[in-house]
Parts: sequence; C-alpha cells; structure tokens
Amino acid sequence: MIKQYSLRLPAYARGFHLITHHIEKVCKDLPSKGLVNIFIHHTSAGLMINENADPSVRADLNKSFDHLVPERMPFYTHTMEGDDDMPAHVKSALTGVSLTIPISGGRMNLGTWQGIFLGEFRDHGGGRKLTITVYGE
Amino acid sequence: MIKQYSLRLPAYARGFHLITHHIEKVCKDLPSKGLVNIFIHHTSAGLMINENADPSVRADLNKSFDHLVPERMPFYTHTMEGDDDMPAHVKSALTGVSLTIPISGGRMNLGTWQGIFLGEFRDHGGGRKLTITVYGE
Amino acid sequence: MIKQYSLRLPAYARGFHLITHHIEKVCKDLPSKGLVNIFIHHTSAGLMINENADPSVRADLNKSFDHLVPERMPFYTHTMEGDDDMPAHVKSALTGVSLTIPISGGRMNLGTWQGIFLGEFRDHGGGRKLTITVYGE
Repeated sequence: MIKQYSLRLPAYARGFHLITHHIEKVCKDLPSKGLVNIFIHHTSAGLMINENADPSVRADLNKSFDHLVPERMPFYTHTMEGDDDMPAHVKSALTGVSLTIPISGGRMNLGTWQGIFLGEFRDHGGGRKLTITVYGE
Repeated sequence: MIKQYSLRLPAYARGFHLITHHIEKVCKDLPSKGLVNIFIHHTSAGLMINENADPSVRADLNKSFDHLVPERMPFYTHTMEGDDDMPAHVKSALTGVSLTIPISGGRMNLGTWQGIFLGEFRDHGGGRKLTITVYGE
Repeated sequence: MIKQYSLRLPAYARGFHLITHHIEKVCKDLPSKGLVNIFIHHTSAGLMINENADPSVRADLNKSFDHLVPERMPFYTHTMEGDDDMPAHVKSALTGVSLTIPISGGRMNLGTWQGIFLGEFRDHGGGRKLTITVYGE
C-alpha cells in the first residue's frame, strides 16, 4: 500500500518551525507498520527532526545555523537574490530536504521529544510545498 | 514484506561509535532486495554512515563536530540542561536521525569502508532507542 | 515492485556536481507512485539535493563547505591519506550518503529548481559507485 499526499505549508518567518501537526492532519489512516517520507520541494528550506517541547531549543538552533553559515561571506558570488539566499542553500544542504520516519501501531513512531520542523532559511520564503509518501501494511 | 525491530543500544560515551554489528544482529533474514531504515528516537544523538576501519577518523569526526558546534556560545539561551545539551541538538540536526540503506543479495549493501555510527552528543546520554524497518522482496 | 540499479559515476573534480541526468538515465520505467533511494558507497563523498540552475550556487556551496571544514586543523590525527581526506569524511557526515525522493506520475518528483548533486570531497576521488533502489506501484 502506497499513498501520497501534497501539502502546502503557510508562509513562515525565517527560523525553525514545528510542523508535526500539519503532517499528522494530512496523513490519516496510516498503515499499521511502515514508513513515511516527507520531502520539501525547495532549495532554500529544509526539514529536520528535533526537540519539540522547549521553544528555546529551536531559537538556539536558528542562531546556531546563522553562526555556522553567516551572510555576506567574502567568497560568495551568488549574491543577486539577497544576503539571505546563499546561506539558505548551504543550510538546506546541512539539514537535508527529506525525512523518513517509521510507522508503528498506526502512528508516526517519533520519540517523546521529537517533532518535525520546517527550516525556513529565507527572510520571506512564502508557502512551501511538501510531498508525503506513506507505505506499509 | 515489512518487518520492524526495536533495539536499545547500550550507553556510550560522548563521541561517534560503530554500531553496524548491533544492527546486523537484529536484522536477520533480510529480503533479497530492498531497503532498511534505521531511526533513532532522540534529539541529542544522531546516526551517520562513515569510515569503519581507522578509529582516528571517528575521533577526528568528534573533534570536528565539537569545533563546528562549540559549548557555551554566548547566544545560547537553552542552558539549563548542561553545557553539552544545546550543542547536542545542533549536532543531531547536522547528522540527522534516520538512515536508509539498500539491501542487495540478502545483505545491507554498505561500501567496503562504510559503517553505521551512533553519534552520542551528550556526556551521559544513556541507552538510546532505535527502530529498524526492513522492507523488500 | 522493487527494482535496484548499480551506477558507476565518472571521476569528478573536488566540488559539487549535478548528476540528475545520470540517475534519470538509469531509472527508466519508474512506477506511477513510490520512492527512489540513491545511496553512495563511499565515506569521502556525499549526496545532496540543491539548486540546479545557477552554477554560482554550487561553486559557493563548495567554498562554504571548505570554510566550514578546513584542511590541516591542528586537532586532526587522521592525516596519512592527505590534507583533503579528513575534511572529506566530515563533509560526508554533513551531507549524508543517502537520498530518498518521491516518485509521482511516473517521474522523480523534484522541485523546479532541485537537482541531485554528487559532493566529491577528495581532490582525486575517482569514479564513485551508487546503488539506486526504486519501489512503488
């Protein structure tokens, strides 16, 4: 059994945003056992699993990514789309754009403290498109 | 055919640790052709595929991650759980928590020098829980 | 339905290289709906999805990775295989070695600006081996 869903997220500000509830709303009637793949169709955003409880974690993750990949590095040549653009591509390379999560007992089998995050790396990225593929039995 | 296994790793010290043998012990009777997904249910640890032969590689990987994501950065606000906690969340974002590996000829089709690693990013993380999902034919 | 393909890429220079066309040439007759997994059997190279249009993006990605993971860090002990070797293992940990992409309507469902990239992190890495696993219905 394979099911596929398309999802357009609302526009988010730059940073990491918990989107587990958006995914769960789309993925109804999960199989008993299997996997779900979540894919984001963009190159200046990413997907991440991380701590879902304390908002200070996601705020510090954002500051850590800004520190790892600063704007206006002297070696950037791809500068026409704004100071936030080239760092966004690097951050997307670091998080990746695809997550695969087990399904057990008819639910996404995330750890107690795990949530699914959008990494929005542009200042004004707009709505982002996801494809969710579920398979199992 | 989908099979799913649960695995609790023993507690490891901070660093990267080869766990291929733990995975292989659990995943018996693999299908001839397919994929295996390994998922870690934590946000301060990660999974990585890297060089399995020379222990100096995993030692240098650990030092490189400590260098990339230092403790006590002045912008951290999530500091209540210890100096190693916030860096652990960032390192987990960088490695990811989910690996997908092909199965060919009834075996995990890793390269000659590839091993599966736990990235334990806490000083005292304790035993870590994995879910392994195998499917194929 | 599960299909598996083996692919040997030509040798590439150090840097990020668009390989979408190599993948598409191998993956003919995709199922209508499903997933494709691409796996690279090496520990000093990686796979990434990123911007496929402007070559300045991949050039800046390469410079950003060189900046994130410099050669000759004083803490490296794994130095026998050349200055480019240990950084290559770290970069491979950062990008990962496995990509999972949805198949929709019989095609890899990449975003308009998304391409599949080889991250060749050695100066002279030689041809790299991939395994591509397709499943769907």
